[in-house]
Amino acid sequence: MKIIIIGATGTIGKHITTALMKDHEVLTAGSKSGDFKVDISSPESIEAFYKQVGNFDSVVCVTGDGHFGPLTSMKDAEFRIGVNSKLMGQVNLVLIGQQYINSNGSFTLTSGSLAEDPIILGTNLSTVNGAINGFVRGAAIELSDAQRINAVAPDVVEESPVYFPYFPGHTPVTMHSVTQAYLKSVLGGQTGQVYKVSNQ
Amino acid sequence: MKIIIIGATGTIGKHITTALMKDHEVLTAGSKSGDFKVDISSPESIEAFYKQVGNFDSVVCVTGDGHFGPLTSMKDAEFRIGVNSKLMGQVNLVLIGQQYINSNGSFTLTSGSLAEDPIILGTNLSTVNGAINGFVRGAAIELSDAQRINAVAPDVVEESPVYFPYFPGHTPVTMHSVTQAYLKSVLGGQTGQVYKVSNQ
Repeated sequence: MKIIIIGATGTIGKHITTALMKDHEVLTAGSKSGDFKVDISSPESIEAFYKQVGNFDSVVCVTGDGHFGPLTSMKDAEFRIGVNSKLMGQVNLVLIGQQYINSNGSFTLTSGSLAEDPIILGTNLSTVNGAINGFVRGAAIELSDAQRINAVAPDVVEESPVYFPYFPGHTPVTMHSVTQAYLKSVLGGQTGQVYKVSNQ
Repeated sequence: MKIIIIGATGTIGKHITTALMKDHEVLTAGSKSGDFKVDISSPESIEAFYKQVGNFDSVVCVTGDGHFGPLTSMKDAEFRIGVNSKLMGQVNLVLIGQQYINSNGSFTLTSGSLAEDPIILGTNLSTVNGAINGFVRGAAIELSDAQRINAVAPDVVEESPVYFPYFPGHTPVTMHSVTQAYLKSVLGGQTGQVYKVSNQ
């Protein structure tokens, strides 16, 4: 299988890349590093990226910016960071990618536990994650050519200790458990699913 | 209580308005009709609107555009209709409104059943509704001065027969049951809730 991983050098992305490289052809991509460069906040960059890559079977997105900050002073422009990057970036990877992906291909997006389990400073990401979960459920029943789509919704991960203070009472999830959720989406047969990876 | 209803002349809005007018001071607003004009897709329009209204206790939003159309040909610009109106419109009503609303005031937004129960042509609204649900959960734990926020998530309503063909197998919900959900949010004490109004 020919698999694209966007955000392949990130905390989660590097684990998925290692796991999938054993048995598959993996193309890495990112805004700054990887076999290919792509800025997911730009539909034009995504279109150019897919044209360059050629046909493929699976795309996994483990990148996308959001805004962490207090709600009581949050402005439209700050809120749009997550909307334009993590939300519309991933949406456009699918809207555009559906024209390039092979039959039976799959899209695997990243949302997160904050959609249903909010933290202080996290409203932008609660919103964006909820949006991605809704998108995956909606898109799954319309994609053509047996294409599939799922999201992985991880809690804070064990290799991101810098975030631990913002997730009081959360038990960080292992990289293994998060990686397994991505493999389930890419290598399994399900569609329209949100795989929650959380210890509570 | 002084209550603002945005979208007061709409299918749902007129029922909420009638119900709340009995015991409260209701100010109606909309893009084209009402006591006040406001375009929720514009932060500047929202800011001007709140300045004009003065202090208030509750805002109920039952308006916001989304895009109905096939996923397989959907473009970024079409998807942004829902993002800029129903999503960012309602988000900005809260981001800006929190500076104007009275202590103990409440925000009541509208999402919808498509977040979790998708229909063909509805991906944009599944996304936007999921986003609003996430926003409400995130914002509820950060709003100051005992402000509250909830969303109502109705299925297709009995007075919108034009939509029935797009909701096969759905049993339309009564205007009474939907109105009650809004009253629960405005007049009750809960926050961070998504009130699903659905017969299944």
